[in-house]
Amino acid sequence: MSVPPIRPIEWLEDRVRIIDQTRLPEAEVYVDLRTAREVADAIKTMKLRGAPLIGVAAAMGVAIESRSLISVGWNKFELKVERAIELLRATRPTATNLFWALDRMNMALGKGSIQTSPGACSDSLVAEALRIYDEDLTTGIEMGRAGESLIDDGCSILTHCNAGALATSGFGTALAPVYAAASKGRKFRVFADETRPLLQGARLTAWELSRAGIDVTVICDGTAHSMISRGKVNLILVGADRITRSGDAANKIGTYGVAVSAERSGVPFYVVAPVSTIDFDIDKGEDIPIEERSQSEITHICGTRIVPSEVTAFNPAFDVTPAELVSGFVTEMGLITPPYRKNIASLRPEKA
Amino acid sequence: MSVPPIRPIEWLEDRVRIIDQTRLPEAEVYVDLRTAREVADAIKTMKLRGAPLIGVAAAMGVAIESRSLISVGWNKFELKVERAIELLRATRPTATNLFWALDRMNMALGKGSIQTSPGACSDSLVAEALRIYDEDLTTGIEMGRAGESLIDDGCSILTHCNAGALATSGFGTALAPVYAAASKGRKFRVFADETRPLLQGARLTAWELSRAGIDVTVICDGTAHSMISRGKVNLILVGADRITRSGDAANKIGTYGVAVSAERSGVPFYVVAPVSTIDFDIDKGEDIPIEERSQSEITHICGTRIVPSEVTAFNPAFDVTPAELVSGFVTEMGLITPPYRKNIASLRPEKA
Repeated sequence: MSVPPIRPIEWLEDRVRIIDQTRLPEAEVYVDLRTAREVADAIKTMKLRGAPLIGVAAAMGVAIESRSLISVGWNKFELKVERAIELLRATRPTATNLFWALDRMNMALGKGSIQTSPGACSDSLVAEALRIYDEDLTTGIEMGRAGESLIDDGCSILTHCNAGALATSGFGTALAPVYAAASKGRKFRVFADETRPLLQGARLTAWELSRAGIDVTVICDGTAHSMISRGKVNLILVGADRITRSGDAANKIGTYGVAVSAERSGVPFYVVAPVSTIDFDIDKGEDIPIEERSQSEITHICGTRIVPSEVTAFNPAFDVTPAELVSGFVTEMGLITPPYRKNIASLRPEKA
Repeated sequence: MSVPPIRPIEWLEDRVRIIDQTRLPEAEVYVDLRTAREVADAIKTMKLRGAPLIGVAAAMGVAIESRSLISVGWNKFELKVERAIELLRATRPTATNLFWALDRMNMALGKGSIQTSPGACSDSLVAEALRIYDEDLTTGIEMGRAGESLIDDGCSILTHCNAGALATSGFGTALAPVYAAASKGRKFRVFADETRPLLQGARLTAWELSRAGIDVTVICDGTAHSMISRGKVNLILVGADRITRSGDAANKIGTYGVAVSAERSGVPFYVVAPVSTIDFDIDKGEDIPIEERSQSEITHICGTRIVPSEVTAFNPAFDVTPAELVSGFVTEMGLITPPYRKNIASLRPEKA
């Protein structure tokens, strides 16, 4: 299976290189991050985004920080790495993969304390970050395999936001089945919701699908509904930032509305996400913390004010699609269908 | 009842003065139009928009054209005025009010032919255009009266696009009940969908409500759905560009999706529009011609390209909300509830 020729993140020993996603599609600019703080800032300002990629980047952020600490004493090393983990944990509240990846890094730090050598422990942290990166790439390919049979020749797929190569180590979640079906030679088209406010669909999904030679058309978010009702969409694929054990799924604001229209018109609506997106500690979607971002993301576009200066805007970054609107979850463990409570529980990893 | 202090259009004898709505909210620029062609261009480029205002402007466009023709012979006068009517008829395809207003102007021209004096006929055309303007203002106030009881103290209203003073002679359709309730001292808040691609909600609805001292918050179009599901919206008011005799209603793209979410959550969804918006010749929404506008409205924002240059966008300007999703129609003749086919037929004006 061919992987899209995109490297959203790269480990370069003394730095982490990322594509600055805020500059796409106009410019393909790579930025080098050398400290946990630089990685945290890149996550907060959405130079990189996408639940799985945030997890990978946070892990690399811990690893890169540890690299600069190998000549300090053990206690200082441990304290500073813990601080880096806390700093990265506070960047964004909704995506689980961030906390899942940092928990893994924290566990690697704990194991390192047996070694008592900062250098050896840093090596372990780097190795763990690279494992998270590699696993995410493999997971994407496996989700592609698990989901590609949903895509028939000649069908039209709708996706919201960007859950593609740019949201992961380099293969994607919602777009993984798309790349898998394309590599089997199937022909189909994709409608990309532009996804206000930050336009990840117009900017990122359109960019990566078009680079991969896949037919993609951008529509406004409000256009998706009438296209669904008029039979112009046969399949909806979206990613997720957090899934509860009952199958409620948080994803980019606007996803829930698409799911409601899909239900009314009987169009299948699938959530594609790795098991690391499942928060087994949360039961209902209403318990997922929803990040509220700056209103300037709405009031200004490309530096121009579009909302009168005396008027405020409300900018939640995510919404929750209840389990009953989800036709199935595509994971690296295969396709999960109802009853979700039972079938999601079966995915729970054994406690280490 | 206080009318919002906004003059979207004004008849100045030798010219028609409009607010250039593409410049709001940053700049309040007035433009003078002196020919039918200038009015047609202003409609096409959406310097003015909103179904009722398009009708008023087109009528004034015919009237202003006739003013420049009073010294030509009758035949030439009649021919040139007919051409102006055809030119204006071809500006935008979806809103009925345009055709309704031009039919009235055409009838006034026909009656004028009895007079055989271009000057006298031009006077009749000007009088008819001013009647259409005045009637629209009165109609707005009457829709306000008919709909204001829907707005309870403390409630939250959602609206999509701009169906306010700026879409009419100066009072509004969807916002008419809002202004009426505010003038009775009721307190409530309005959420304005920003309404991509041209952002009439963010730019125009926010501007005119805030000038009228009404609490307004802008949200992205995709945010409306989760707000409806979470009980943050008690009432939805939208305008319409064309209503069929069965009660299907074309309105700004995105409206249908709001109606679907409203249905799922049991939130009342009202269409506010004058009787001139009803097309008694069309039965089903699928027979309403839907204008497809330039993809550059999506691919570029404020001059910046946001969609990769090799990717296309699809830009239908309207969608159709089926009658079964509409809780009621607020018209100048009062509130219309199901059965719509029967109750809408009762609004049909007597043929002259």
